[in-house]
Amino acid sequence: MAKDKKKQPRPKAETPKGFRDYFGADVTERKAMLDRIAEIYHRHGFDPLETSAVETVEALGKFLPDVDRPNAGVFAWQEEAVPGGGSGDWLALRYDLTAPLARVAAQFRNDLPTPYRRYAMGPVWRNEKPGPGRFRQFYQCDADTVGSASVAADAEICAMLTDALEAVGIARGDYIVRINNRKVLDGVLEAVFGSIENVAHAIIEGNPTIAEQKQAVLRTIDKFDKVGRVGVCELLGKGRKDSSGAFIEGVGLTDDQIELVIAFLTAKGENNEQTMKNLAETVATSPSGMQGIIELDEIAAMLKAMGIGEDRAVIDPSVVRGLGYYTGPVFEAELTFEILDDKGRKRQFGSVAGGGRYDGLVERFTDQKVPATGISIGVDRLLAALRAKGLAGADGVGPVVVTVMDRDRMADYQAMAADLRAAGIRAEVYLGNPKNFGNQLKYADKRGAPVAIIQGGDEAERGVVQVKDLVLGAKLASEASHEEWKAQPAQTEVPRADLVDEVRRILG
Amino acid sequence: MAKDKKKQPRPKAETPKGFRDYFGADVTERKAMLDRIAEIYHRHGFDPLETSAVETVEALGKFLPDVDRPNAGVFAWQEEAVPGGGSGDWLALRYDLTAPLARVAAQFRNDLPTPYRRYAMGPVWRNEKPGPGRFRQFYQCDADTVGSASVAADAEICAMLTDALEAVGIARGDYIVRINNRKVLDGVLEAVFGSIENVAHAIIEGNPTIAEQKQAVLRTIDKFDKVGRVGVCELLGKGRKDSSGAFIEGVGLTDDQIELVIAFLTAKGENNEQTMKNLAETVATSPSGMQGIIELDEIAAMLKAMGIGEDRAVIDPSVVRGLGYYTGPVFEAELTFEILDDKGRKRQFGSVAGGGRYDGLVERFTDQKVPATGISIGVDRLLAALRAKGLAGADGVGPVVVTVMDRDRMADYQAMAADLRAAGIRAEVYLGNPKNFGNQLKYADKRGAPVAIIQGGDEAERGVVQVKDLVLGAKLASEASHEEWKAQPAQTEVPRADLVDEVRRILG
Repeated sequence: MAKDKKKQPRPKAETPKGFRDYFGADVTERKAMLDRIAEIYHRHGFDPLETSAVETVEALGKFLPDVDRPNAGVFAWQEEAVPGGGSGDWLALRYDLTAPLARVAAQFRNDLPTPYRRYAMGPVWRNEKPGPGRFRQFYQCDADTVGSASVAADAEICAMLTDALEAVGIARGDYIVRINNRKVLDGVLEAVFGSIENVAHAIIEGNPTIAEQKQAVLRTIDKFDKVGRVGVCELLGKGRKDSSGAFIEGVGLTDDQIELVIAFLTAKGENNEQTMKNLAETVATSPSGMQGIIELDEIAAMLKAMGIGEDRAVIDPSVVRGLGYYTGPVFEAELTFEILDDKGRKRQFGSVAGGGRYDGLVERFTDQKVPATGISIGVDRLLAALRAKGLAGADGVGPVVVTVMDRDRMADYQAMAADLRAAGIRAEVYLGNPKNFGNQLKYADKRGAPVAIIQGGDEAERGVVQVKDLVLGAKLASEASHEEWKAQPAQTEVPRADLVDEVRRILG
Repeated sequence: MAKDKKKQPRPKAETPKGFRDYFGADVTERKAMLDRIAEIYHRHGFDPLETSAVETVEALGKFLPDVDRPNAGVFAWQEEAVPGGGSGDWLALRYDLTAPLARVAAQFRNDLPTPYRRYAMGPVWRNEKPGPGRFRQFYQCDADTVGSASVAADAEICAMLTDALEAVGIARGDYIVRINNRKVLDGVLEAVFGSIENVAHAIIEGNPTIAEQKQAVLRTIDKFDKVGRVGVCELLGKGRKDSSGAFIEGVGLTDDQIELVIAFLTAKGENNEQTMKNLAETVATSPSGMQGIIELDEIAAMLKAMGIGEDRAVIDPSVVRGLGYYTGPVFEAELTFEILDDKGRKRQFGSVAGGGRYDGLVERFTDQKVPATGISIGVDRLLAALRAKGLAGADGVGPVVVTVMDRDRMADYQAMAADLRAAGIRAEVYLGNPKNFGNQLKYADKRGAPVAIIQGGDEAERGVVQVKDLVLGAKLASEASHEEWKAQPAQTEVPRADLVDEVRRILG
């Protein structure tokens, strides 16, 4: 009986784990940033595309491209199979903006221009373990060119990225776009594994297959950022003790082989010309590698022609992230200014965008190779960078608050707010319980209101209003002497007809 | 064996049934419209809120408010219960923007200002049978005030709605915001069912209960738009044959009772004052009804004070849609200009926004009553209206296309596009296969390019470029005589240094 009487428990008012809400400036600052980026993309001839958030699992494919996230999954569910209704298909939320682009490029291939330049901005969803600062819904901002095999498309994307970073406020010198080419890495692998002797050596050493060893080399190169030159040498050779003391098996390359890989990773010279020479020495024996160098050379020439100096975009073979996924040029944008990390130590802000040339995504649908290249900006990271530099730039000014002294004259207060708005000034009437005037001023404070308007019955009779400068008031309260306070009152009485002018004067 | 060799079938490149993609102007036109609305909402002191697309089913509640869609459902799935990871909770995509607002208002009640004015714009998802023009993902654009019981909040929402409609381009006179009050309807129901005689009559007639009969009256009133005055009379009385010939059982009211309901529905007079008088006569005996009339009177006075004439927002008791869901004032915005329907018949464009005062949504979470009122704009319908009036206003101008005559001089072409962009002109280099020049011009046409730039080896040697006015060219091709053609050539040769000036001249 007791059980039956128990009240239905109230639902918990909580976002699902790993999800969050965005309030006020969170929304407007991101929107302002994305609007500026969209303007640059538009000027480069890119058109917006907004795909549905939901895709069939079949169209999406099951695998995330990002090798950093092996456990990444999607949010998926099966439709009920209903005649004329649900199809019984498995549906899922998109996990990035590239997979839907591939689907669109295949589905609308007869209608879209070739090549198709498009940009996309919006949320994506990943069903993975949430952690601090890691959310299961986040924004991506992508630009891709589908259907052009020319490295001119890659150069254009890199140039556009530098323009986009400057458009949101990152100063020249505070960022660098670094460019590498997967084909040069292929050349290194050819140089490493190409000769009969080396293959024989690998087999004698009991390494399973050259293919697997190549994969192991790729994975190791991906760790260059983390473990550095010495770490990579150890991991490519006999193995390495990690920071926890555990021993990680090495790939088992010879010293000569290791040297080739290191020469590639550290080939960056004083300028593009020198870098290209260093690379050429590394992969001289490999046709694929030389092709990669020629492409990098073309990209460098085109960037120069577009007026993009090496201080903005530069050839840098140490860009390794995601090399396994891409098939040609790869790019990464880094912010080079320093911020303080969680522990108060200075460190470079780091990567805010990455991309490159990829194949096979459209081919999945059509069996035809469709070359594509693109960039993805990490929206949250770039916004965090703008905030760290004080560049996020939402005005953050709250509305003028018209207080309510006499609830029977609500219409008068509404008219004041309407007059202010008609003059383009953000304004609102206090709509809470007007009984306690202190609460109204507390509300105005919480709203970041620059000005409060006050009109009691006495003022109404005399046809005047009190205009209270809350910014000045706060300043006077904390700093001013009594004389200053009297000389520069934070509250003035003006005729009702002068309300708008007076507020405009205070807002400056 | 044959089966084993069979290739894995290619995935279908298709949006899931009921979903769609938005291209180019679809995206920019909607964005331009929403930006203008956001500007108005901001100026009224409303802050943006962007909640996560995913909610727990528990927080969302299972029921859609919109009585028009009894089969509506949500897209939901159960999380895997993993230690430290998924919770085993049922998650779902939000079906509107109000349920997440209620969750946020409860979750952050100690941090948000009271009252909390917020706007939200974004996609929502409904798992229902797709149909022509009915999609399972669509945009909503809401503004709500949570935590104010004052009808000043309702008046403000209505005034803001009129401003928003004018801001997107709907002319004064082409729209009307109609305002009603659920409490007046309650008064009518009290007047209809309040007396002992009527209750007795209902029981004698074998009608189940007064409560159920009240519901039946509400449902019938909701059909006023569809079946008109005569239809409602029949449905409230003895029943009605519908267009298919089927007989629909009536509610079984007496003629006196029916007359009261009809008097309410048709109480609109020449102006608000007259309407209020008509309403007062209908519900004179009901305290709830009189309270509703007083509220409408206050709203009318505040709208007048804000300078909103009755040509923009008016009291109209025939607004009935969704009355069952709301608890106080209700609003509906209608566009009053005529468009041609599918069959070429003229008809009024109709409703583009609706809303009202609702209770109980936040109470679900906190057990405390939190009054709220708000409006939801039908984004797709309003955009369709703007398009019908030629007001959607995306410029639709494609980029200047720099053609490629000599693929070894890609860098030169990129430099031309870069120069144009630096002057703020949208420009791109042709990145397809440049072999066939005709294809390049076809591409420029598909892109809606106003100008094409051409520079072959000969022109490069002489330091000039050809600038082709594609708009004029198309016009001349269809209209011009041979003389005109020669007198006003659509293609001019200019020094490379004058490229930007010449393009700017053509673009005007």
